[in-house]
Amino acid sequence: MRAKRTRLAFLAVTVFAAVAAAGALATVNYSGAEDNSREIKRLIDSDKPKNVILLIGDGMGDSEITLAKYYGKGADGTLNMETLPFAGELNTYGLSAGPGPNYAPNYVPDSAPTATAWSTGKKTIDARLSQGPSASEKIPGSNAGFTTTFETADKRGMLVGNVSTAEITDATPAAPSAHMSQRACQGPADTRTICPTEAKGAGGLGSIAEQQIDHMLDVNLGGGRNRYLQTLDGNTSTVIDYAKSKGYRYVESASELSAVSSLAKGPVLGLFNASNMTTEFEPLIAAPTPGAGSPTFRCDETNRPANEPSLETMTKKAIQLLENRRGFFLQVEGASIDKRDHASDACGQIGETLAFDKAVGVALAYQDKHEDTLVVITADHSHTSQIVPAGQDVPGFYATLKSDDGVPIRVSYGTGKTPPGQSHTGARVPVAAIGPQASNVMGIRDQTDLFWTLIGRDG
Amino acid sequence: MRAKRTRLAFLAVTVFAAVAAAGALATVNYSGAEDNSREIKRLIDSDKPKNVILLIGDGMGDSEITLAKYYGKGADGTLNMETLPFAGELNTYGLSAGPGPNYAPNYVPDSAPTATAWSTGKKTIDARLSQGPSASEKIPGSNAGFTTTFETADKRGMLVGNVSTAEITDATPAAPSAHMSQRACQGPADTRTICPTEAKGAGGLGSIAEQQIDHMLDVNLGGGRNRYLQTLDGNTSTVIDYAKSKGYRYVESASELSAVSSLAKGPVLGLFNASNMTTEFEPLIAAPTPGAGSPTFRCDETNRPANEPSLETMTKKAIQLLENRRGFFLQVEGASIDKRDHASDACGQIGETLAFDKAVGVALAYQDKHEDTLVVITADHSHTSQIVPAGQDVPGFYATLKSDDGVPIRVSYGTGKTPPGQSHTGARVPVAAIGPQASNVMGIRDQTDLFWTLIGRDG
Repeated sequence: MRAKRTRLAFLAVTVFAAVAAAGALATVNYSGAEDNSREIKRLIDSDKPKNVILLIGDGMGDSEITLAKYYGKGADGTLNMETLPFAGELNTYGLSAGPGPNYAPNYVPDSAPTATAWSTGKKTIDARLSQGPSASEKIPGSNAGFTTTFETADKRGMLVGNVSTAEITDATPAAPSAHMSQRACQGPADTRTICPTEAKGAGGLGSIAEQQIDHMLDVNLGGGRNRYLQTLDGNTSTVIDYAKSKGYRYVESASELSAVSSLAKGPVLGLFNASNMTTEFEPLIAAPTPGAGSPTFRCDETNRPANEPSLETMTKKAIQLLENRRGFFLQVEGASIDKRDHASDACGQIGETLAFDKAVGVALAYQDKHEDTLVVITADHSHTSQIVPAGQDVPGFYATLKSDDGVPIRVSYGTGKTPPGQSHTGARVPVAAIGPQASNVMGIRDQTDLFWTLIGRDG
Repeated sequence: MRAKRTRLAFLAVTVFAAVAAAGALATVNYSGAEDNSREIKRLIDSDKPKNVILLIGDGMGDSEITLAKYYGKGADGTLNMETLPFAGELNTYGLSAGPGPNYAPNYVPDSAPTATAWSTGKKTIDARLSQGPSASEKIPGSNAGFTTTFETADKRGMLVGNVSTAEITDATPAAPSAHMSQRACQGPADTRTICPTEAKGAGGLGSIAEQQIDHMLDVNLGGGRNRYLQTLDGNTSTVIDYAKSKGYRYVESASELSAVSSLAKGPVLGLFNASNMTTEFEPLIAAPTPGAGSPTFRCDETNRPANEPSLETMTKKAIQLLENRRGFFLQVEGASIDKRDHASDACGQIGETLAFDKAVGVALAYQDKHEDTLVVITADHSHTSQIVPAGQDVPGFYATLKSDDGVPIRVSYGTGKTPPGQSHTGARVPVAAIGPQASNVMGIRDQTDLFWTLIGRDG
């Protein structure tokens, strides 16, 4: 039922419309976009996807996307993430801590409950990962009924991959791969200090790092080496040693990752930085008047060292390794869009958004050849940065850059009084999709609904 | 081909998902959203719509919508504008002034070029209404090739309606109904001063008010009486006199509007305030630390005097009057979402967003019974307000309110150093639709594309 190369056909229409609309030449003979009704109807596919690729831009609200587009592609350019046919928006509120059984909403959640929302279909409180909001749901040695996307995929015999530019034990990559009352309990030593009842030595599931190994994630790539170098409870072995003992192949550089060509020698653990991975662009931290940057300032795009693979490279490798007859589930996070937005770092967040978009391009290219793959792109929560007029004086912090169009673009950071204290915001976030089940992201929905679109139905 | 009551069927699914997702009770037996693929496929309708209702929330980005939802409906409540099946987003950049023929993009446009974008399918510069960006396109007595939605609808024999809570001569209601180099040229006296070559006395098309009468808009309802009370060029008659001489029925109160039951006695001009119409909620202006409002502060919702009709009432009346065998095109603007956002007025903007949503409800109820009607909801540009954590200290201005959930919600204004100087922002804006052609709003597009979806094809 699915037509070949449908995404590209849709893309062609979109690009045509954008070019026609750009108006850069006042003499352009403007033409209207075509009616896409028939094409869209053809693209609706209620099959169960064989493969699922979920790409999360952390903190990537509409404002962050538009900023990266204008800076990197220009006003009439097109990001990969703008080419998907089905779009919608998700409300992201979480729960506030309380005695229960009723929990008030938390309108500006952190990345733990938001990742829990699509990873389990359920809401929880700040800092909590795939566990319920109550004290009694903080059960050592149990998921307390919050079954995740990864667990469901694994049970179905699909291979599972986890990729992030953050520590791979950070909230977003942790939610589908672990159950933990505090997101800070990333390694065993962290857990012994912060979540002692959840440590393995206390009969718990252990740290996020240990749970990722116990889950036998087939591909687990990102930063966070220092978490994995923490020693196990009552033991001098590290989590890396533990992973090797369970059959993992361990790599820690781009070249070592490149040399891995199959999972035949075991699942792959790749930890490419002691902490978060290095950003693509050198930081440009916004400042109060007269601000950072200038109307002619272009970001330095060569910040990432060659021994750290790009998100695009990790995504490509993950897909290559995971592809198999029974299908795979891959979650990819562009993590530092959020982290650099927190830090009022205009170049940093733009570079990470554009890097994320390249990873989206990899997923879409794969989907174009494998139409039984569902690709979903979304954000976990919205964030601070706003595009303001190039002459606007703001009460917070700002930076001015030269866009790809060659004109000034000013970005304002106004949710935190002292940098780097910018905060998440509560606005709903975009979601877009292509492939089987993709039409279920349409309209305005709750973030928990995404779980069912990804994997939850008949699970 | 269209199934009866399809929107409500879709709504039921949405509401069910939201309730299931809310997680207010930790003991809820969570259920997944259903697969909507078949329902969505049924809703795709490539027919030409008989009627078109376009509702514009001025300055109503995702952040403004989410804020109004949480304040007015609570986290698991549902706005009318959240129930439409087809969604997408529009990039809103305009053009910067220049010698041409090339015009650099303007990433943060005002409401004149944005309204021109969907009203004509073409981009222009700030302040300009349905005219081209060049000096030579500022042609008195000509639309310079920028044919509008209203003009196209009129040519097709459809009735045309224009409703706004702003002065009805303000940029958004002006763009489809007039061609003018400066949006400020609202009445004849304004035009003699600011756009003298475009005055009627100079052989031009005349002020926006005069052009609206010359266009014989069938229904033209809003504020802006003082513009219409300006005298014609070389004449002591006002534009209201002029309208009456052309056969218009003139009303200026809610009760007078209510008494009009058909267009049999001529088209209707209703001007319910000397300037912009009064907002629904009493203002609460955000302040620097310690801020305006309190965690228990609810807005005063009784600000609008009874002699001014609500946007909901005007929309209902407009539809009632316009309904006819050959169809109608109605544009409705909720204008003061933007104006109160500029003024850092948290209650003001929330009240206007909720009032706009009631007008959306009127349009959707009509569409539900008249499936040959296309309803499109969008914003013209994004704006300043952001939902931040309830304890967050911000560098600009903030207000704290009690949400419908009974918990504090804090809104921050951080794009202008001195209130009321908050600015538009450049993020792309949401669009949603139902009815014939509605699926053409899907995906990420340019604001000019909306023209073709509304009316432009085969025009």
